[in-house]
Amino acid sequence: MAALCISFLFQLFFCLVFSLPTGRNSICGYKSCPATNPSMLNVHLVPHTHDDVGWLKTVDQYFYGDRNNIQHAGVQYILDSVIDQLQKDPARRFIYVETAFFYRWWKQQSQSTQRIVTQLVNEGRLEFINGGWCMSDEATTHYSAVIDQMTLGLRFLNDTFGECGRPRVAWHIDPFGHAREHASIFAQMGYDGFFFGRLDYQDKARRMKTKEMEMLWRASESLTPPVADLFTGVLPNGYNPPEGFCWDQSCDDAPIRDDPDLEDYNVDEIVQLFVNTSYKQAAFYKTNHIIMTMGSDFQYENANLWYKNMDKLIKYVNALQAKGSKVNVLYSTPSCYLQELNLANFTWPLKTDDFFPYADAAHDFWTGYFTSRPALKLYERLSNSRLQTCNQLEVLGGPKSTSGPFGEGDSDTMKRAMGVAQHHDAVSGTEKQHVAYDYARRLATGWAHCEILVRNSLAVLSGSEAPRVFCENLNISVCPLTESSHKFSMNVYNPLGRTVSWPVRLPVNGSAYNVTDSTGKTVESQVVPLSKSTKEVRRNRGYAKGELVFQVEAPPLGYSTYIISMHKDEPQASSAKPTATRSIQNKFLKVTFDDTTGLLSSLTNLETNQTIRLTQNFYWYNASVGNTESPQTSGAYIFRPNSSDPLVINKTAEIQIVTLSNTVQEVTQWFSPWVSQVVRLYEGRKELELEWTVGPVPVADGLGKEVITRLETDIKSSDYFYTDSNGREVLERRKDYRPTWDLKQTEPVAGNYYPINSRAYIKASVVQPITSALFASWDDKHQLTVVTDRSQGASSLYNGSLEIMLHRRLLHDDFRGVGEPLSEPGEFSDGLVVRGHLLLTLTPPDTAADVHRPLAQGMVLQPLLSFQDGTPSANTKLQFSGLQADLPPAVHLLTLSQWDKDLVLVRLEHQYEAKESKTYSQPVTVNLQKLFSTLKVLGASEMSLGANQWKEDMNRLQWNPEKTSKPLPLSAKDPSPGEVTLNPMEIRTFLLRVQQL
Amino acid sequence: MAALCISFLFQLFFCLVFSLPTGRNSICGYKSCPATNPSMLNVHLVPHTHDDVGWLKTVDQYFYGDRNNIQHAGVQYILDSVIDQLQKDPARRFIYVETAFFYRWWKQQSQSTQRIVTQLVNEGRLEFINGGWCMSDEATTHYSAVIDQMTLGLRFLNDTFGECGRPRVAWHIDPFGHAREHASIFAQMGYDGFFFGRLDYQDKARRMKTKEMEMLWRASESLTPPVADLFTGVLPNGYNPPEGFCWDQSCDDAPIRDDPDLEDYNVDEIVQLFVNTSYKQAAFYKTNHIIMTMGSDFQYENANLWYKNMDKLIKYVNALQAKGSKVNVLYSTPSCYLQELNLANFTWPLKTDDFFPYADAAHDFWTGYFTSRPALKLYERLSNSRLQTCNQLEVLGGPKSTSGPFGEGDSDTMKRAMGVAQHHDAVSGTEKQHVAYDYARRLATGWAHCEILVRNSLAVLSGSEAPRVFCENLNISVCPLTESSHKFSMNVYNPLGRTVSWPVRLPVNGSAYNVTDSTGKTVESQVVPLSKSTKEVRRNRGYAKGELVFQVEAPPLGYSTYIISMHKDEPQASSAKPTATRSIQNKFLKVTFDDTTGLLSSLTNLETNQTIRLTQNFYWYNASVGNTESPQTSGAYIFRPNSSDPLVINKTAEIQIVTLSNTVQEVTQWFSPWVSQVVRLYEGRKELELEWTVGPVPVADGLGKEVITRLETDIKSSDYFYTDSNGREVLERRKDYRPTWDLKQTEPVAGNYYPINSRAYIKASVVQPITSALFASWDDKHQLTVVTDRSQGASSLYNGSLEIMLHRRLLHDDFRGVGEPLSEPGEFSDGLVVRGHLLLTLTPPDTAADVHRPLAQGMVLQPLLSFQDGTPSANTKLQFSGLQADLPPAVHLLTLSQWDKDLVLVRLEHQYEAKESKTYSQPVTVNLQKLFSTLKVLGASEMSLGANQWKEDMNRLQWNPEKTSKPLPLSAKDPSPGEVTLNPMEIRTFLLRVQQL
Repeated sequence: MAALCISFLFQLFFCLVFSLPTGRNSICGYKSCPATNPSMLNVHLVPHTHDDVGWLKTVDQYFYGDRNNIQHAGVQYILDSVIDQLQKDPARRFIYVETAFFYRWWKQQSQSTQRIVTQLVNEGRLEFINGGWCMSDEATTHYSAVIDQMTLGLRFLNDTFGECGRPRVAWHIDPFGHAREHASIFAQMGYDGFFFGRLDYQDKARRMKTKEMEMLWRASESLTPPVADLFTGVLPNGYNPPEGFCWDQSCDDAPIRDDPDLEDYNVDEIVQLFVNTSYKQAAFYKTNHIIMTMGSDFQYENANLWYKNMDKLIKYVNALQAKGSKVNVLYSTPSCYLQELNLANFTWPLKTDDFFPYADAAHDFWTGYFTSRPALKLYERLSNSRLQTCNQLEVLGGPKSTSGPFGEGDSDTMKRAMGVAQHHDAVSGTEKQHVAYDYARRLATGWAHCEILVRNSLAVLSGSEAPRVFCENLNISVCPLTESSHKFSMNVYNPLGRTVSWPVRLPVNGSAYNVTDSTGKTVESQVVPLSKSTKEVRRNRGYAKGELVFQVEAPPLGYSTYIISMHKDEPQASSAKPTATRSIQNKFLKVTFDDTTGLLSSLTNLETNQTIRLTQNFYWYNASVGNTESPQTSGAYIFRPNSSDPLVINKTAEIQIVTLSNTVQEVTQWFSPWVSQVVRLYEGRKELELEWTVGPVPVADGLGKEVITRLETDIKSSDYFYTDSNGREVLERRKDYRPTWDLKQTEPVAGNYYPINSRAYIKASVVQPITSALFASWDDKHQLTVVTDRSQGASSLYNGSLEIMLHRRLLHDDFRGVGEPLSEPGEFSDGLVVRGHLLLTLTPPDTAADVHRPLAQGMVLQPLLSFQDGTPSANTKLQFSGLQADLPPAVHLLTLSQWDKDLVLVRLEHQYEAKESKTYSQPVTVNLQKLFSTLKVLGASEMSLGANQWKEDMNRLQWNPEKTSKPLPLSAKDPSPGEVTLNPMEIRTFLLRVQQL
Repeated sequence: MAALCISFLFQLFFCLVFSLPTGRNSICGYKSCPATNPSMLNVHLVPHTHDDVGWLKTVDQYFYGDRNNIQHAGVQYILDSVIDQLQKDPARRFIYVETAFFYRWWKQQSQSTQRIVTQLVNEGRLEFINGGWCMSDEATTHYSAVIDQMTLGLRFLNDTFGECGRPRVAWHIDPFGHAREHASIFAQMGYDGFFFGRLDYQDKARRMKTKEMEMLWRASESLTPPVADLFTGVLPNGYNPPEGFCWDQSCDDAPIRDDPDLEDYNVDEIVQLFVNTSYKQAAFYKTNHIIMTMGSDFQYENANLWYKNMDKLIKYVNALQAKGSKVNVLYSTPSCYLQELNLANFTWPLKTDDFFPYADAAHDFWTGYFTSRPALKLYERLSNSRLQTCNQLEVLGGPKSTSGPFGEGDSDTMKRAMGVAQHHDAVSGTEKQHVAYDYARRLATGWAHCEILVRNSLAVLSGSEAPRVFCENLNISVCPLTESSHKFSMNVYNPLGRTVSWPVRLPVNGSAYNVTDSTGKTVESQVVPLSKSTKEVRRNRGYAKGELVFQVEAPPLGYSTYIISMHKDEPQASSAKPTATRSIQNKFLKVTFDDTTGLLSSLTNLETNQTIRLTQNFYWYNASVGNTESPQTSGAYIFRPNSSDPLVINKTAEIQIVTLSNTVQEVTQWFSPWVSQVVRLYEGRKELELEWTVGPVPVADGLGKEVITRLETDIKSSDYFYTDSNGREVLERRKDYRPTWDLKQTEPVAGNYYPINSRAYIKASVVQPITSALFASWDDKHQLTVVTDRSQGASSLYNGSLEIMLHRRLLHDDFRGVGEPLSEPGEFSDGLVVRGHLLLTLTPPDTAADVHRPLAQGMVLQPLLSFQDGTPSANTKLQFSGLQADLPPAVHLLTLSQWDKDLVLVRLEHQYEAKESKTYSQPVTVNLQKLFSTLKVLGASEMSLGANQWKEDMNRLQWNPEKTSKPLPLSAKDPSPGEVTLNPMEIRTFLLRVQQL
């Protein structure tokens, strides 16, 4: 992209000139690929290193090679060494993947080294593959953060190397299962192909047999092909070299001993083994090209070992051609291999589902990490919300945001922290404890930088430079300012593109408060007593006696300000005293409790007048410690219960009505000293909120516990359930079934778990025979949707049931390298307490999305509350919106981020799938020029999703799928330049040249 | 030496021109040393790798980096990496030590790499240190092989790099104790200093306290100082870096994290630790210079890790000088450090004893390896004899030796095999079993190459091209030719410079033979029955019924031929039937046996008419498996008996008179099924031969056994005994005593063991009070000397006793890395059987050397027997001598070896110490021109002992010792050019230009 002039849109022209030369004589990309031999079996050796952006060590420990007693790994040395070795022979190639590391290394290099590296990149000898900040996890990440981290990495490569730095291939060799949404994102980012290493062992066996190791993945049911089509290849050996050919310093395979004067000359033997290995591998693939991944975790720290032996291998194997051998081995890259596959012009099998769950053996299902480290998973999700807010306020506040009255702030630190957190051993929860702390620390540091930015920006926007505090611990009702102040104002910033209202709960010590909104209007509020569980969890970190509850509303991409002052007079008569009750309800929902058990018993949508039986309880699976069938234990990665029947925490719940007020109605359920729940209905909300608190999970009995909540209904879901993919499109799941192979189910629970990122639902899958007088007529009209606050594992093991795993505390490692049992100590070392929310909606299936889409977006992008003590000064602007108007309901402002001086990156997204909403699953058009209230859009250029290529330059390789019978979705076009039409599930990315108004 | 003209001797001039440029602009050596700061504490960082020439892996496995599952080590990569890294910064330095590895690497390099390396050497950035083929063991090597292996390495360096490749410093950082003879050799080779890492922990503690870590070692009592004076330094941390500063890939120390943007910035902390460490170390040394060895075993495989962090260390530590710090750290080498010590012009403590035994803790005496792997130790010693023969015959046979009727032969293979075998984990016996086999295999291969050379050479010299066989297994009486042939000839080649006679024993199946010498004269011979123990040991490898015994004689550096034919007639009446006897005797000696026990009871020298009580028996120390005092076990390195009292194998021996004939008288003693001995007196020999056979050592009882033989006499030795140093000068030992510190003895047996290489003796140390009527008058006149056939451990724990450890079989590893118990399986996997010889002489002390010196040389350089079937053809030359005459008795021809076309290397040695022989401890003169019978000496130039420098160019650094009261020996000068005077213990090395006559 560098040094190119941007395409024109509207009447406005502008030219983006990047500072780095693109390498005038560069022959990078496909042009730089080595020659192959069409009449031979071509073996593409791909020298690579897999550098986890944190796992057993922190990302910086990995970079430096610190704590080598934990794991020998030092990325600085890997890059040093590879660059040295590449220079020794132009035939040598290397790919590098993780930009978080490359960035660290690059900025420490001398200019002369940088020049050498640039030359290597320009000649295709060093090629960036994937190129995101990290290699993201696919099960537990949210698409918003994934797109951001990819953008961060790709931008660094583009800024540094221009077009030659643009990765052609996506490369997820290690993630533990593969999400369809990831494939869709990669396709939209312009990648020509995708390779990975891990898939279900049964799936792999079948694919090897049928030569379906390589395929075309149609990754969206909404986007018009080939927009979300991605050529996808399964690598032959995970991402390791074939047996006997690992020449890293960490390996023990025999080096090639080719000096006849020394003992153990082994050239003939090694060459023969290689030729045999090549033919064996070729039997599973379609073309006369095969790929071998020559590297593994943190390899190439001493690249000489690899290259010296591969040089010899190539020399001696190819020397045999003179004697009639038909094996041709060469240094290559995934993109050069991909190009050969493309040139073969074959048709490829079509894949439309995903690659979850992943099992590498009969009792080894990697479905535990969907839930592992639930607190980190939430913190990562909240951090994404904060980063988006930070990004937006950087744009809206202008240059003073980063350098203003509160000092120097930036969004980059948070971007990088979030980039790192997307790693497949970060938010996945599969890292060591000390590394998990490091990820959290990075997010906190990122937020500290953003806080300054946000303070500056809000000062610009509001005109008030009064000190502003943020309350990090509202989830446990701790906020020193609100606890102590008699009068304060609260700024509610809304990062969404439409006006949203939320319930707010502030820890207070007064018994009644006066709350007014930006217009001075009093807002109904209520002080509710602090729940016992909150008191237990906060311990002595806060002293609030109650929570002030009220609804707030904020304009799109803007804020409103609430002024809260304590009543001097004595408490109002406290709202309805806690009493036993059989139900709570608001305008929209009614929920009943069973008298005997204290559990939920039904849920009614009062608008649609539909009711389902709904019971809910908490259980724990007893984690396997291995048995005679398999030594596999449950651990950070693996979920393996020792029985398919979880143990109930308590058959009955002790219930306590905390509050029955206009503002909120809540019932607390006590299941045990370590499991409680608040069932809550806020005024005006269409969802039932379940606030669960789990922990410290007791393990004194020596049993690892995987805690779930299970919802049981009378919905006739018949083995079907639905889970989202990275928070976007929803996939159908079916118990004990895989769409693409004949599953032999070996783990009836773990083998049916799937990741959910934002939601799961069950619905009546077909018209059911009448079995119940009461509910029968509604059977095909019910959809129970659960929106979650973080990624979790979920399943539906019984008709009408849906279970979600909430927390895990285990006593054994699961032999996948992390080397620790997943037993989070928590702040007081007695086991981590986790609190979270499930939002339940009951709707007819055909309107469900109309509710759960905005509900989930509101969960993902939460309002940012900030507080100022006292009364705002008179000239303070109490309300602000960055948009001229609310966006249409189907449109989500995914990204608004400062790109460069006068340039902002904007992503607009259609947040509905093609068929899920009668109302919203339609093309919708937005006028870019009429979007922002404070920015004049001088020009715009559409980019690839990763923002590293002009959209019009995206010429992806074309692939022929085997025929499909599925109808292809169609898409509408932009009506005029500047008017952007979004089709269902479409994301469009623009670089806007703007001027602050 | 390269490109220099040789100095003139006689009237003959010649000029040696070597092919390699010496680097015209080179500034190597001391001139290339980095600047230091006289007002600061200068810390010399010495980047180095310690590359064992075999240990846990074979030398070639180490070179290639094969079998990394045993130990991660690959020398090819070390050199690759270091050369790369040195190029990155001219300040960086590296030293390389083991030429066996460098040679392997060098010959695989491209010309361009060779040019780069030459440049680095010429600039002193890569410096060779020590430079022998290996870093030899000091306890178990013979000086002849040590000088050879040093010469081999130094010559390669000289041929390759010229003067800049000449090592200035000897560097024995790992050997387990240090021999005085090694220091003497190094001094005579022109080394300016010597550094080592291991010395007794008590010695080290004292030296640190008194700042005597650096000293002047006066390594000979015969040579005139400073000929054998060697500046010697004890390194501060063995050879490792100080704690916290190991940056090799094999280490876990924290890298320097100096990027303030990343976590855990640690520069200040590391700098402070380094400064503290430096001052702490400086407290133990005299000057304001200290040395730090930055490396260890097989380190620098990825040199970038080391250099990158050391670069930073130097930068940040020296940056503190601007703030007043007085620590100056720099890349350096041992020679640059040495130069600074020399410039300091201090006086240094004088050291005159040696550094044996070595203990690294109270119960950890490294005295087991003196005996470990006794069969390998013998094979190495025999191989030296064969190599000298091979070298001599290459010279004497002329060019046809290496390319003649029997094919292509060479001595180089054997030289390199012997070079490798001198390594401190080779002949020392401290390698893994598979590596021990590899050393033996290399020696066998070396000999196979030599065999061809020897066949060619003898064909040239004798005029007979008839097939010639060698019998490898005469020690177990196996030789297919002699067993089956009715008539054959035997060539006896004598590698010594004087006529020698030996008894010969040939396995035969006839009962009587006719033996004639070169002149046709019949030689008295005898067929003696094969001993039961030999039959047991040979198993089914041979079928001889008896051994034909006769004395042979061969001229100096020449051969004689014996013709042996079987008598057709029936056996002579077998010599005296075995009967019980109380004694055997010949002209010189009489030995008696105790009737009751069957043990020896006395030994009489019939010439001097002196008799001692002499009993001898076999015992085993029960190897410690660790106890409450210390977990230390007995192992390959460590000798630790679990009691000071060994267990007797048998209090009595079953004795059997095998032979009582004119030729030989022998008595077999049976102690157990696995211990037997033949006591033997050959006609005309002045030594009593004890042929012991030990093994398989039984370990079914779970007890490791260390088998000794103990000689007990009535000699009043009073805690004193004497052991040789590498087969040359003899050192006085005293029980529970060390000359240089106040010993706290913690292991009464192991702590009194010393290595012997050729001999040990006891003598009456002072005039004793009369205590025994029979022997009293002789007390001060007896010296009992034992000459051994290989290196062994020995001690004298009781007055009049001398014990020698013969064999060890252990069941535990001793925690020094080898990771195996020393339990040699032997050929039949039931435990190795070892056979050997002890030669006993009884003399007055003042004439003892006259006997044991030639006896030991004869043991070291044994005749080579070769056989031809049938009768020699008429024109066969049956006798030959390469010398014009026998050398004077004091002179030993140490080396005669082809150096280049027309150039031969000659070493002449005075084999007596200054005071040990009234007769021979005098200067002796040899005329080089009158030496050889078949070579005309055209010119000669004297060299340093290592033959890598003209003698006249040897300008060693001068050092001032603290005063000594010992009288200094004086030396005589050469009377004229060409006449070479040898003073006691002097070795003189000449390169001769010769012409075959």
